[in-house]
Amino acid sequence: MTTTDIPETDNNNNNNNNIKKPQGVAFQMPTSITLATPRKGKIVYIEGKKYILDENGNPCQMCNTLDDFQSFTSLGNTSTTTTTTTTSKPTTTTTTTTTSISKPSTPVNINPVLEPAPDVEQLGRSSWTFLHSLAASYPEHATTIEQSQMKSFLLLFGNLYPCWYCAEDLREWMKENQPKVKGRDEFGEWMCDAHNAVNEKLGKSKFDCALWKQRWIRGWSKKQ
Amino acid sequence: MTTTDIPETDNNNNNNNNIKKPQGVAFQMPTSITLATPRKGKIVYIEGKKYILDENGNPCQMCNTLDDFQSFTSLGNTSTTTTTTTTSKPTTTTTTTTTSISKPSTPVNINPVLEPAPDVEQLGRSSWTFLHSLAASYPEHATTIEQSQMKSFLLLFGNLYPCWYCAEDLREWMKENQPKVKGRDEFGEWMCDAHNAVNEKLGKSKFDCALWKQRWIRGWSKKQ
Repeated sequence: MTTTDIPETDNNNNNNNNIKKPQGVAFQMPTSITLATPRKGKIVYIEGKKYILDENGNPCQMCNTLDDFQSFTSLGNTSTTTTTTTTSKPTTTTTTTTTSISKPSTPVNINPVLEPAPDVEQLGRSSWTFLHSLAASYPEHATTIEQSQMKSFLLLFGNLYPCWYCAEDLREWMKENQPKVKGRDEFGEWMCDAHNAVNEKLGKSKFDCALWKQRWIRGWSKKQ
Repeated sequence: MTTTDIPETDNNNNNNNNIKKPQGVAFQMPTSITLATPRKGKIVYIEGKKYILDENGNPCQMCNTLDDFQSFTSLGNTSTTTTTTTTSKPTTTTTTTTTSISKPSTPVNINPVLEPAPDVEQLGRSSWTFLHSLAASYPEHATTIEQSQMKSFLLLFGNLYPCWYCAEDLREWMKENQPKVKGRDEFGEWMCDAHNAVNEKLGKSKFDCALWKQRWIRGWSKKQ
């Protein structure tokens, strides 16, 4: 294990003391990258339809569309009611307390109208918005440390993405298409390629990557 | 620099060879966490209104609402037209090629109707969808390695979030509220607390964290 290494920063201001932390280091550990075995479930076909299950044989919320998730349940597959193997104890409202206890607290909405939990499509749209924005805000010319930082992030993202099935595809794609993170232009194009690989897999039309900045950087086209 | 450390996995299957990679390792490097100095711009007040600028003094797309971004520009602040300091060369459509070149390629949509680039609110909504899903799909009881992996991810996320202003807040919050990642319950509640800290800052009502599973895990309430 190498988890006791000190995080690197490019301002040479490392410090193990909890009070004086280097700028940007929110907490001390970890440290070095620790990769767990990615989650993996299985794929089943019922009446010609494909369903993605989690490691317990239950439909994976983050891996199926809402329609498919509901269709699996309506087929008599009641295992959705046993997704969790331990009894979930009710959480308490005390967890809503923030560190700003000295300020007047904003009210807790105790009877919110809950939106439905995201399915694979909503999660995908949201995550691509985040990822393309990551590229849009990336430095024009990244330092070696910025490049290494982004590679670390992508490595972990590919291991942790909530849809295990999609994450597996992403990791496979990244094996053949190493992240290009020297600067914003090539990183944005690489991200667009990654998104197009998914579009192709889903039979969607591909995005013209020449337009990625117009899509993700506001006002970019005005600069041409 | 500790960037040559070998990633840890919990299947004891590390390998430096590019062909036989441990499951889930999409590419070889990096390796250990390398933290860059987070981006930072400045805040200006014009006619009593707050605008968040990037390091070049231009309005930060990911840090302002669309309204504020446009309002800043309409005030005669034309620096939005010089956000990039180097001339952006047009990219070519060849970047849309994926690794699946042997399959019939899906068409490229060459004249897409482009949605507007995301502002701070759309980025925020999308990112919270991703983050809460991360908690919803987290193991009930995480191994030490899974916990370390998630901490690494959160550390990098706080350094890289595209809105530098929001990222700074998140890092500050995480200094006082170390990630709780022993299992899904405490991680989901911690994430809900993080979201509520932002809600409070924005004057929005807080979410009742006792309901986080009902909001983010489909069918969870049926299991009670």
